[in-house]
Amino acid sequence: MEIDNLLKQVNFIKEIDKIKYIQRKTKLFNSDRNENDAEHSWHLAMMAIVLAEHSNEKIDLLKVIKMVLIHDIVEIDAGDTFIYDTVKNHTNTDEESLAANRIFGILPQKQAEELIEIWKEFEKGETNEAKFAKSMDRFEPLLQNTSNNGGTWREFNVDYAKVYEKKKEIKKGSETIWKYSEALINESVEKGILIKN
Amino acid sequence: MEIDNLLKQVNFIKEIDKIKYIQRKTKLFNSDRNENDAEHSWHLAMMAIVLAEHSNEKIDLLKVIKMVLIHDIVEIDAGDTFIYDTVKNHTNTDEESLAANRIFGILPQKQAEELIEIWKEFEKGETNEAKFAKSMDRFEPLLQNTSNNGGTWREFNVDYAKVYEKKKEIKKGSETIWKYSEALINESVEKGILIKN
Repeated sequence: MEIDNLLKQVNFIKEIDKIKYIQRKTKLFNSDRNENDAEHSWHLAMMAIVLAEHSNEKIDLLKVIKMVLIHDIVEIDAGDTFIYDTVKNHTNTDEESLAANRIFGILPQKQAEELIEIWKEFEKGETNEAKFAKSMDRFEPLLQNTSNNGGTWREFNVDYAKVYEKKKEIKKGSETIWKYSEALINESVEKGILIKN
Repeated sequence: MEIDNLLKQVNFIKEIDKIKYIQRKTKLFNSDRNENDAEHSWHLAMMAIVLAEHSNEKIDLLKVIKMVLIHDIVEIDAGDTFIYDTVKNHTNTDEESLAANRIFGILPQKQAEELIEIWKEFEKGETNEAKFAKSMDRFEPLLQNTSNNGGTWREFNVDYAKVYEKKKEIKKGSETIWKYSEALINESVEKGILIKN
């Protein structure tokens, strides 16, 4: 039993290595190199650790960390979808559900079920943990774009209204981080790195 | 106070982005691209989550995850040292302590102290959490090298005795994973991808 589980877990560990090849649209801080999903997930976990005190509600930090570490694993099969893509829905696609079942399904059954549940909880965004995890996922690219002279906003002509609409999700996880984010967004407009039509 | 903390935390979040540029000697699975420290740390955290049941002793998983997520942050200043380097000591150098103080010191004081303590605990390797975290850190490159036809063992002429010496640390964290690792090492000798002199 123990060794059966271990063999399945090792297969999973090898499979998820592929996340290191999934390129995001956003770049590293002060850089023109794209970030990949493994780097992004590591960064969100570190952010959750150091920013947990700003959560609106009491959270189970371990669960938040699990959420952000696994949230993009489905992209191994489904690919990265740009958040401002107007054609393809960003989340909850059938493709992503199939991917979750296939990839987490490599693990021993109980473990697979636990991680699929956590992934679904993140996607739904209704619990305190999911709200805070999602606020991390919105906050990182905001910091990156303001460090990169507008970054993907300028590259893909994303305007203030669209950015504000996506970023206000941060408020559900943390009023404090949202207040800071709003100031960053307004400052970006003033600097001319984000266009307000 | 809240905003003071947040500003320091944001500075830290930006600073640790640099870990994404620190290249390790080991390559991704079935690949010739080097792994960087952010990818490596993400992978260890995922391994800790799925392999926790194999720990010899009861562990605080959240602490283990914090350990593996932060363990290489000091390399932003001190650089990566190859584990089989015979000249430079792999760990606990003065350079790494200075780096820990500088980088974690960007955070609010209490948080800085907590993360420095966790980093030191990992380095010492005496607690159950540190032993398990270290076994993850030894296990990942073993899986990579066996997937890469010998990987860094062949590239840098590292022989069986040296590999066995470093890898047996895994046993302190998990007897089960060590049994499996020993089998992988012996199999590598049989396959001729690890030389036994």
